[in-house]
Amino acid sequence: MVNSSVVNTYPLSSYTFGTKEPKMEKDTSVADRLARMKVNYMKEGMRTSVEAILLVQEHNHPHILLLQIGNTFCKLPGGRLKPGENEIEGLKRKLTSKLGANSPALVPDWKIGECVAIWWRPNFETIMYPYCPPHITKPKECKKLFLVQLSEREYFAVPKNLKLLAVPLFELYDNVQRYGPVISTIPQQLSRFQFNMITT
Amino acid sequence: MVNSSVVNTYPLSSYTFGTKEPKMEKDTSVADRLARMKVNYMKEGMRTSVEAILLVQEHNHPHILLLQIGNTFCKLPGGRLKPGENEIEGLKRKLTSKLGANSPALVPDWKIGECVAIWWRPNFETIMYPYCPPHITKPKECKKLFLVQLSEREYFAVPKNLKLLAVPLFELYDNVQRYGPVISTIPQQLSRFQFNMITT
Repeated sequence: MVNSSVVNTYPLSSYTFGTKEPKMEKDTSVADRLARMKVNYMKEGMRTSVEAILLVQEHNHPHILLLQIGNTFCKLPGGRLKPGENEIEGLKRKLTSKLGANSPALVPDWKIGECVAIWWRPNFETIMYPYCPPHITKPKECKKLFLVQLSEREYFAVPKNLKLLAVPLFELYDNVQRYGPVISTIPQQLSRFQFNMITT
Repeated sequence: MVNSSVVNTYPLSSYTFGTKEPKMEKDTSVADRLARMKVNYMKEGMRTSVEAILLVQEHNHPHILLLQIGNTFCKLPGGRLKPGENEIEGLKRKLTSKLGANSPALVPDWKIGECVAIWWRPNFETIMYPYCPPHITKPKECKKLFLVQLSEREYFAVPKNLKLLAVPLFELYDNVQRYGPVISTIPQQLSRFQFNMITT
């Protein structure tokens, strides 16, 4: 774990992007996704998911790496922990699965930093809250967002069915329509950090 | 400075509230306020303001103490630092001025915790952003929000022209119309903390 209020960010151009085999979504509709969530909940209890905020810079402004599926839907890289799995190790596993090269030597040494936000899903529905609502004793999912500090140079292998986008904070801010409540308020959660924009 | 991801919160009923002489707003309109900001900027440069998130609990859910002016406008206790003033000392001074009793022995021993958000005002306008927008080299104000850990018992003296409200996180969340962008996204900024709800 790295805890610091100063975050080094490097230019997007210092990273290399390749492709790898597609990673298909497990569900083809929101209804399928919620149904699968319900089945898993019966077997394993509350789902814990972990997602990464990967930062780069362009024009002296922080950008976040988002995975785009199709033409509209964007998500943070990450995913569901296995029952009992450690959060940090689980996030590293998910990042490697989503963005790591097939050759282990090329996989980034993921440096997982602070947890910056926690979201709760009270029911088998799409709506989530940044607190566990009163009277909810059995939330269905807990999603944790971690800041991940990238090294100066990395190679990312992007599944062929996805696009990796660097989206500026000013594009995310106040844009719940396009990015949803979790991603659109990342600028507020990052506001307390000082970004050390390194130009190499 | 207190840094911890666990925050003790005590019931609203464990605090005592009295009144003191009114603290009138310095400006009677938004235009007056922006004009005064401009005059001060010419004299002293960028304004730095500090505000406190004071937490209590009710029905096992965190609530924030807000000062209400008139029937609608709510603000966090805090205010503008003097030029060169230390942030933590300045916030203590402002909290005592806004909420401390006139008798120094009764003034809370303010324990200022982590900075949870920073907002920037690029121009002499009401709009603020949780980042300094690109191409803005001379922001006009920087506002920092700090978590303040209250002790189990305190006495607050509320200026007679103001009301002190305990507002639940679920009321603030996604309520930009009523509370504005800074206060309505406090639930997201606090989501990473674990609240230890103490019932006494």
